[in-house]
Formats: sequence, C-alpha cells, structure tokens
Amino acid sequence: MKVAVIFGSASDKPVMKSAGDVLREFGVAYSAHILSAHRVPELLAETVRTLEKEGIEVVIAGAGLAAALPGVIASQTTLPVIGVPIAAGGLGGLDALFSTVQMPKPIPVATVGVNNAANAAYLALEILAVKYPELKEKLLSYRKKMKADFENEYKEAAL
Amino acid sequence: MKVAVIFGSASDKPVMKSAGDVLREFGVAYSAHILSAHRVPELLAETVRTLEKEGIEVVIAGAGLAAALPGVIASQTTLPVIGVPIAAGGLGGLDALFSTVQMPKPIPVATVGVNNAANAAYLALEILAVKYPELKEKLLSYRKKMKADFENEYKEAAL
Amino acid sequence: MKVAVIFGSASDKPVMKSAGDVLREFGVAYSAHILSAHRVPELLAETVRTLEKEGIEVVIAGAGLAAALPGVIASQTTLPVIGVPIAAGGLGGLDALFSTVQMPKPIPVATVGVNNAANAAYLALEILAVKYPELKEKLLSYRKKMKADFENEYKEAAL
Amino acid sequence: MKVAVIFGSASDKPVMKSAGDVLREFGVAYSAHILSAHRVPELLAETVRTLEKEGIEVVIAGAGLAAALPGVIASQTTLPVIGVPIAAGGLGGLDALFSTVQMPKPIPVATVGVNNAANAAYLALEILAVKYPELKEKLLSYRKKMKADFENEYKEAAL
Amino acid sequence: MKVAVIFGSASDKPVMKSAGDVLREFGVAYSAHILSAHRVPELLAETVRTLEKEGIEVVIAGAGLAAALPGVIASQTTLPVIGVPIAAGGLGGLDALFSTVQMPKPIPVATVGVNNAANAAYLALEILAVKYPELKEKLLSYRKKMKADFENEYKEAAL
Amino acid sequence: MKVAVIFGSASDKPVMKSAGDVLREFGVAYSAHILSAHRVPELLAETVRTLEKEGIEVVIAGAGLAAALPGVIASQTTLPVIGVPIAAGGLGGLDALFSTVQMPKPIPVATVGVNNAANAAYLALEILAVKYPELKEKLLSYRKKMKADFENEYKEAAL
Amino acid sequence: MKVAVIFGSASDKPVMKSAGDVLREFGVAYSAHILSAHRVPELLAETVRTLEKEGIEVVIAGAGLAAALPGVIASQTTLPVIGVPIAAGGLGGLDALFSTVQMPKPIPVATVGVNNAANAAYLALEILAVKYPELKEKLLSYRKKMKADFENEYKEAAL
Amino acid sequence: MKVAVIFGSASDKPVMKSAGDVLREFGVAYSAHILSAHRVPELLAETVRTLEKEGIEVVIAGAGLAAALPGVIASQTTLPVIGVPIAAGGLGGLDALFSTVQMPKPIPVATVGVNNAANAAYLALEILAVKYPELKEKLLSYRKKMKADFENEYKEAAL
Repeated sequence: MKVAVIFGSASDKPVMKSAGDVLREFGVAYSAHILSAHRVPELLAETVRTLEKEGIEVVIAGAGLAAALPGVIASQTTLPVIGVPIAAGGLGGLDALFSTVQMPKPIPVATVGVNNAANAAYLALEILAVKYPELKEKLLSYRKKMKADFENEYKEAAL
Repeated sequence: MKVAVIFGSASDKPVMKSAGDVLREFGVAYSAHILSAHRVPELLAETVRTLEKEGIEVVIAGAGLAAALPGVIASQTTLPVIGVPIAAGGLGGLDALFSTVQMPKPIPVATVGVNNAANAAYLALEILAVKYPELKEKLLSYRKKMKADFENEYKEAAL
Repeated sequence: MKVAVIFGSASDKPVMKSAGDVLREFGVAYSAHILSAHRVPELLAETVRTLEKEGIEVVIAGAGLAAALPGVIASQTTLPVIGVPIAAGGLGGLDALFSTVQMPKPIPVATVGVNNAANAAYLALEILAVKYPELKEKLLSYRKKMKADFENEYKEAAL
Repeated sequence: MKVAVIFGSASDKPVMKSAGDVLREFGVAYSAHILSAHRVPELLAETVRTLEKEGIEVVIAGAGLAAALPGVIASQTTLPVIGVPIAAGGLGGLDALFSTVQMPKPIPVATVGVNNAANAAYLALEILAVKYPELKEKLLSYRKKMKADFENEYKEAAL
Repeated sequence: MKVAVIFGSASDKPVMKSAGDVLREFGVAYSAHILSAHRVPELLAETVRTLEKEGIEVVIAGAGLAAALPGVIASQTTLPVIGVPIAAGGLGGLDALFSTVQMPKPIPVATVGVNNAANAAYLALEILAVKYPELKEKLLSYRKKMKADFENEYKEAAL
Repeated sequence: MKVAVIFGSASDKPVMKSAGDVLREFGVAYSAHILSAHRVPELLAETVRTLEKEGIEVVIAGAGLAAALPGVIASQTTLPVIGVPIAAGGLGGLDALFSTVQMPKPIPVATVGVNNAANAAYLALEILAVKYPELKEKLLSYRKKMKADFENEYKEAAL
Repeated sequence: MKVAVIFGSASDKPVMKSAGDVLREFGVAYSAHILSAHRVPELLAETVRTLEKEGIEVVIAGAGLAAALPGVIASQTTLPVIGVPIAAGGLGGLDALFSTVQMPKPIPVATVGVNNAANAAYLALEILAVKYPELKEKLLSYRKKMKADFENEYKEAAL
Repeated sequence: MKVAVIFGSASDKPVMKSAGDVLREFGVAYSAHILSAHRVPELLAETVRTLEKEGIEVVIAGAGLAAALPGVIASQTTLPVIGVPIAAGGLGGLDALFSTVQMPKPIPVATVGVNNAANAAYLALEILAVKYPELKEKLLSYRKKMKADFENEYKEAAL
C-alpha cells in the first residue's frame, strides 16, 4: 500500500469514491478507512502509526463541517497529508475548506478543492512520482492522452 | 481548580486574558495552559486526562485559523468544552468560528463570539452555577449590579 | 424537567426533533415550547421565569434568520442557554449563526453548529453531568459504545 | 420629541452621532438612550412603553455583533423601527447586518447600511414627512440644495 | 392608493405577492407595477413622478441581483422607499441585499430581509400608522390576535 | 474625448486617479466627472446624453457601497460601460462588486477588480483598439515592454 | 467571425448557450470553442493566436471554479476579453467570480454576472458597436423595442 | 536545486520570504523566481520547462487576487505544485484562496493557508521526505524539538 484514504463517515463515501477510482486507474495500491478525529481520536492515532509502519507514503483525508481530520492526522505524522473539504449543510463547504486549509505552521495540509477527491488522488500520484519514475511516466502519458482527448472534443464544439 | 483555560499559542494571550479576569472576579479557581492540537497532540491528550483527574469541571479553549483545539479537547473528554474562535489574518475570525462551531455530533463545542473570551468565562460560570448555588447567587448579584450600573449610564445619554 | 427546549416556530420542529430524541435516550426529562422573541416577547419572558421556578437547569433554544431567541432568553436568566442556529432561506444559516453566537458580554449563548440540535442536547447532557454523576457515567458509556460501534464500521471500510 | 435614538453601548456613540446631527439640522426633536436588549431587557421594554406614551413616532436603533436591539424594540411596539447595523470586530458588520435585517414577519426592522446612522435619520425624516407637510417641504429643499451643491462640485472634477 | 409596490420583473411576482396579501388584509389600497431601473429608466422615473402626484405615501420596491430599483426610486422621491432584496442565482440574495441596503446618505432605502415582501408590507403599514390612527388600531389588534394565536399554538408544543 | 471617467464622490478620487494616469500615458483624451446615481440622477442622465453626443466611446464608472452608478449609466446608453467597484467600509468592496457585476440582461457592466481603476483604463484601451489600429500598436508595444521589464526584474529574484 | 466564445468544458454549454443566441439574433458571426487553461494550455495559446490572425475582435470566455480561462486568454492577447463566471459546486459561483474579476493590471477581464452569458454577448455587441455603426443602430433599436415590450407588460401588472 | 519558489510580484516577497527561511533551515536547495501567469505567460512556461529539466522536484507558487499562477504552473508540469494564496486588498485573501484551491481535475494545486508560505515549505519538505530518508529524519527531529520547545513554554503559561 502506498496511499491511505481516510474519511470521516460513511456519508462521505460518494465524494471520496473518485479518489479510489483514480488510484486504481494508475495501479497505485491504497487502503481505505473510515475514521473520525472527533469520535475515535485514539483509534485514529493508532491507525496513523500502524499505516506509517506499514509503509504508507501519502495520506488523503476527507471531512466535512469543522473538518479536523486532515489536520489531526498531519499533527501525528510527517507524511504529506492531502485534505479534501467536503460540503455538508448550507455553507457550501466553506466551513470544511477553512478548517482544512488554515493550518498553523509547521503542520501543513495540502488542500484541494471542495469535494474534489479526484484531485486529491492526482496530487498523491504527483507526490509519489517524485520518487517513482514509472509513475512519472504514467502521469505524463495520462496528460498527453487527456490533451488528445480534449482536442477531439474541441473539434466538434458548437453553441 | 474548577476551570481550565487552554489556548493555542502565546500570541492568543491578549484575547484570552479577559477569561482569567472574569473567573478571578468571581473567585473561581482556574489553571491556564498553552497547548496546541496540531503541534503537541500527545501532550494535549495527556493534559486533558490529568486535568480531568484533578477535578476540572469545565474547559475553555481558544484558537485561531483552523481552530481544532476546542474540538480535539471535546473528543477526549465529556466535560463541557467552551470554544473561543480567535481572529487571526484577513478572514476576520470566520475560519476559526467555522472550525470551532461546526462540530459533528455527538461532540459539541459550546462556541461563543469571535475573540469573546470574557463570554466564555461567563458561560463557564453559568455552567458551574447549575451545581454550585453560591455561584448562582453571585451571578444573580452581578446581573443586578450590571443593570443598576447600566441605568446610571442611561440617565446621562446624549447625542 | 431538567431541560427546556424552545424554538421559534412550528417549521423549526424537524430540525429540533433530534434534541428531544437525544434527551429521551439519556432519560433526561425535558419540556418543549414554541415561543418567539419577536412575536410573543412577554410570553417568552413569563415562560422563562416559570421554567426557572420549576427547576429547569439548562435551556436549548433554536431559531433561524435574525435568531434573537437564544440571546433574549439568555438576557432573562443566568441558566446556561444553548443556541441552535437554524438554516432558513438562501444564506445557509450564516444569518442565524451570527445572530446566535456574536453575543455581547456578559450574556453568552453556547452556540452549536447550524441545524445541529442533536449536539445541543449532547452539550446539555455534558453540562448536567457536571452536577449529576449518574449522567456522567451514562455519557462515558455512550462514548465507549460509540467508539466500539465506529470500530466495527471501520473494519469494513472500502472505496 | 418625535424620534427616539437608542443604541447599545457608549462605544456606539461615534457611529450614532450623525443621526442626531441630521435630526437637529431639520429641527426634529429627539431623545437619545443607551439601552441594551441583552443587558437591560426590562428597562428597554419599560423605556419603549414610556416613549410611546410620550408620543415618539419613530425609533432609530443601532447595535453591533448579534444586534438584537432593533428587533427586540420592534417586537414591543408598532412604531416604525429603523435599524443601524454597527461594525464591531473582524466581520465588517455583516453579523450586525444579518441580525438586524433578517427579521421574521410580521415584525420588520427598516434596516439601513452598516454604520450609516445618518441615513437612519434621513429615513426617519421621510417617514415623518408622510404626516407632516412642513417636513416634506424641508426634505424637498434639502434635496434641491444637495443637487445644486453637487453640481458645483461637478464643475471642477479632474483626475 | 396609499402604497405602490414595484418590482423588477414578472419572475419576482411569487416573492412580492405576499406584500399585496398583507396590504389587502389591512384594507390599504395599493397599485402594483413591473418596472426596471436598468431596462426602463425613463418609464420608472415618470411613474414615480405620477405616483407621487396621485398621492402615494410609501413605496415598496423589490429586486434581485444588482438590485438598483429601490435605490433609484429613492433617488427620485422623498417618500419612504422600502426595499425587498430578492434571492436569484447562487449567492442566496446577498448580492441583492448589499445592493439594496448599502445606500449612500442622504438617500436611504428601508431594507427588509431577503425575499421578505410580507415584512415590507408590515413596515409600510407601520409608517402609514404614524399618520392614520385607524391603521394604528388595526396594527395593535393584529399584534394582539397574533399573540393569542401564538399562545394557542404554544399550548400543544411537543418534540 | 474618447473616454469619460465618472465616479460617485470626491472621496473616490484616490482610487480612480490611476485610470487617468493610464489613459494619459496612452495619449487617449478623457474627461472626468463626479456624478452620483443616487444624489443627482437627472444631472447624471443629462451628462450621459451630452457625453454621447460629444462622441465619447467608452465610459468608466467607479462607485462604492450599493454601487448603482455604472449600472444606471449602462441603462442610459449603449456605449460599453466599465465598472470599478470601490471598497468603502468593512465589507472589503464585496458590496460594490456585487452591485456592479450582477446586472440583469441586456444591460451589462464590464466589471474589473475591486479598486482596480488602472485595469478599467486598460480595458477601455483594448475596447478602443478594436476600432483604432494605432492604439492596438501602442498596446502591443506596451505589453512587449512590460514583458521585457519583467524579465529584467526576474533576473534578480531572491528570497 | 467577429467574436470567439470559449468555455472550459462541455458541462458549461447550457450556461454559455445564451451567448450564442444573442449573437445570432444580432447577426454577429462567432465561433465556439471548448478549451481549458488548465488541461490544454498549449492548444489554448495556439487557438488564441489563430483566432487573432483570423480577425476575431472580441473574446467571450466562461469558466467555473478556479476560473483561470478568461485571465489566461487575456494574458495572450490585447483583444477585449469578457469573462463569464460559472457557478459550479456549493460556493454559488463566488469562486469563479473572484478568479475572473480580480485580475492584476494591466491584464483586465471584463467580467459580467455569474452565469450571465447573455450579458457577455450584449457587452460584446456594445464593444463592436464602437467600431460598427450598423451594430450601434441595431442595439439602439433593440433597446427601444425592449422598452416598448416592457411597457406593455407593465400595463397588466397586478399582485 | 530541489525546490522552485515562484511568486507573482516583488510585493509578494515579504510573505514568501518565510518559505526560503524554512528551506534553508533544512538545507534544501531552492531557486526563487518572480514570474506572472498573466504578465509573462511565455516566460513562465519556458521557466517551468527549464526548471523541470534542471531537476526541480517540487514547486511552491504564491500569488494574490485572481491567483492563476499556481494553477497555470500545474497545467504545465506533473511536479507537485504547492499554492500559497496571498491576501491583497479588502477580501482578506479569499479571492486568492478560491483561485488557488478550486482547481479542475486532473490538475491539482496543493493549497496551504492564506499567506502561510512557511507551511508551503514544510509541505515541500514532507513531499521530498517521501523520497529522501535523510530529510525524513530531519523532519522527525524537528517535530521532536518543536514539541520539547512547546512543553517548556507550556510550563510557564499564565493568564
């Protein structure tokens, strides 16, 4: 396993699913965990320690509302932690965005857009690609293909 | 000690000072602690356990930015935790307010207004007064005096 | 009765219902009241006086829009008042949140998250548990059970 | 006295002063009162009753933070109540604006811009002018003069 | 006719309808007009002049987005202008609220809550009641009845 | 004169000055006017008519608060109107931005950033350059020079 | 072709469609392109260069989220670029509005309201009308007709 | 060089300086560049290509307002790009935060808090530590020392 995907409750699964989809598409092994900074803090701390021992290299953490999960994980590891603010309730995810991104130094959370779990996975791939040249190649191919696909779509644009 | 006042860094002291002022004025013993959910999570957990053993009955916790401190404390105790969102940076404290108040159930933080540490102390007094009749009396006297003082001020209003 | 649950109109009932659910689950007696700070101010003041005489120890108050209800109740009692900002209209509850939390000293409202009436009830339980050891035990058991339940859910996490 | 100007604390005076200036300029008698919905609710209610008996015809009420003052006054009278949201703290007056304007029906507060006590006075004049033709004349003259003054200024515009 | 109700487009009718309902309930004659500050500025100016000649005493104006309508009317009359910010699009009516309430002196708009056309009508009634004692009586009776109705509802509250 | 620069009050001058600076630098003749949609609506309408007859081809309009000026001008001409939202008070210019940009169709205001009068001038130049090839050349030279200047600055970057 | 309409993805088409409708109604030739600043930056740059050579005189660009498209186009041409912020996700388009309008000098984007592609087209027409007198005539006729249509609607207003 | 620190203008230097301080403290080589996505797009693209060839492994990019810089860099490389939203003007950095974090997939920007360039550097270190064990050690030592320092400070806390 290279990546751990952690999210706060079963209701976050529809949002976080795309992170798993992207990682699988790139052949990167990951494990998924439902864990809450507020409800099971000891289990969270223990799991982070275990994951680190098992060789996890990047953590993706998604949470809504007062989204403490990514920051609390970041406080317990020096692995890069990617935060996905999840929109829940009427504030459009602004509460989760602020709770995820406004971390005090020296404990950063690499925050992506609201509900954008796919981008969290792409960011995890880019981070791993710093170390793994074969992943770098896959990312470059993917970008090339994405551009080619886009160009085809572009040919038929109309309003 | 009946109350613990915890805040995230020395720079929060000017805001949190008024909590101590109010508690002293009412003769309620308290201890003060600088502790960070993100920088010293283990020390925070340990301190919360110690404070609870020593008989602390209410916790006041103030933090800015992605203010995880009050919520993380609340996750580790069933004592009432009062949160003071502290304004830091350009977002006017809205980041800290969201991070403090939007807690998932069943882990509430009793949130007061931005930078309003005095109100956190008054709320602590009201909570303790549920148990301690003498504090109830003090609060009632204080309100009576406050109203009398206000009426005097009111007599001389002019624009 | 230990807790009074007060809300501004019948339309707030679906949000406030979970407060009653939680209190009943913990065997804490409560009364429910529809009362408006703006529409029946005298009745509200009279009811608060009556409730206090009858021995109510904590008040939960939920309101939307320019949510004055929790603050007006807090101005008429030294009991702890817990405020539930209710989302109504297009501002996502930000209007009710600001109107509930930004109280002037020395009249705090213990504010919980937007629409989070369940958390208001948990906070009421925590406040009462300062005085009632049997409630403290129930809260500790509940947290223990919640963590065990969470761990079971955690075992089957997948993406 | 035709107008009562009520505000929440002595610190609101610099903002509210311009309301008095405008009323005096138009020769409209007014009284000024420092009163708080949260700190002296009974005195506020009593004062509103007294003012109404004394023949006050419009109320101007300014407050900051969880600005309940205008709405609470409006709940106790059918006189038109004009609300001035006052900026205090880092939220730019948005808290006071929401708390003042988002009133439930049938208890409106005629809200003017943040800190714009002068406009509250002009609105009071317009309301009184519905009844008093001489005030209508003064308002029309004032507008005429304002336009003439503006035109003079306009002649010398340069960048 | 005592009141003119003006709104920016036919799509605003569902929101503005309650203003007409309230005015009819109180027996206050009103006329309704679809007029736009941005699309028919000359017709708007001409209509305001005509309405004023015909003896209109209060104007209610509702608009969404960059809601210039209430302010532009206010710039062309010294009658009290009541503004109803209408929510349209994803900003929850915050755009219309700011555009309506943040008027420069000495041109106030008496702003009510987002989409709250009923409150605009109640405010119009309160303004007219300054001049018309029979309307004052009606408002007092209405409030009395509202409170009695509320008390009946209160008797059956439950959660 | 090709451009008219209109702003709401003398206090807007420090913000609007940079529009004049840019236009002069490009040798584009402009006139400057202090005019208010709310205070001198007739004079504004008359001035717009006059300016159009005199051959003005683009209008730049800056205003703060409930910034109706650009939209009201746009309602009275089919010339392109560029709006500069000006920050005034505690809302950071968000009120003026919403009031300027959220125009109903078919009356657009070409809105630039808060307080960014220079960009309003550059936009005016780009619009005029559609018609005037010599201005197009000047803009292209300016961009080239800007890039060269930037490159020099870039050479010495350090942290 | 006089106008290029560019948008970030096929999902933006329903919003951008009205731009095409307006341009066709006025007989202004345009081309439509799906292009992304973030996904196909080289293709975007190349297309902008091609369009400029082909004589395009105005660009309309619509994008959501971190809407870089209009600004990136503006950085590569001195043609007027009109930006349409598109609402996507829970922030109501505020993210796209800020990303589009807050451009640094000297690279303006002429921003219209959220999702208001029709207004982008009307603005393009106004810009082209500076150069093309026949378009000016069409715009004047359109406004005249719009006002006449509005007056008819106005005659039947009722609440 | 392992890290490139890029920012939009010389005025961003005081904010970005702390990124350099942190990187130097950890002995990680970096280069600094002033580059603008909007003003020198070609130079930016060329520099990104050069940096990648020279072996840069992480990019830190800071910008204010419509902060396109981090996203545009991310569109031209598969290296991890860390974005620092810089507060400029009255919107408290919310404009830059939205423009930086709300990126479309598959082009993420790892966003840190407003003005928090130090956290960008710590995140860069964490990303590099995935590959370089000696940096991992340094980070772990740093955290240990930080906690020890914090504990000393904690011993003397008082209010």
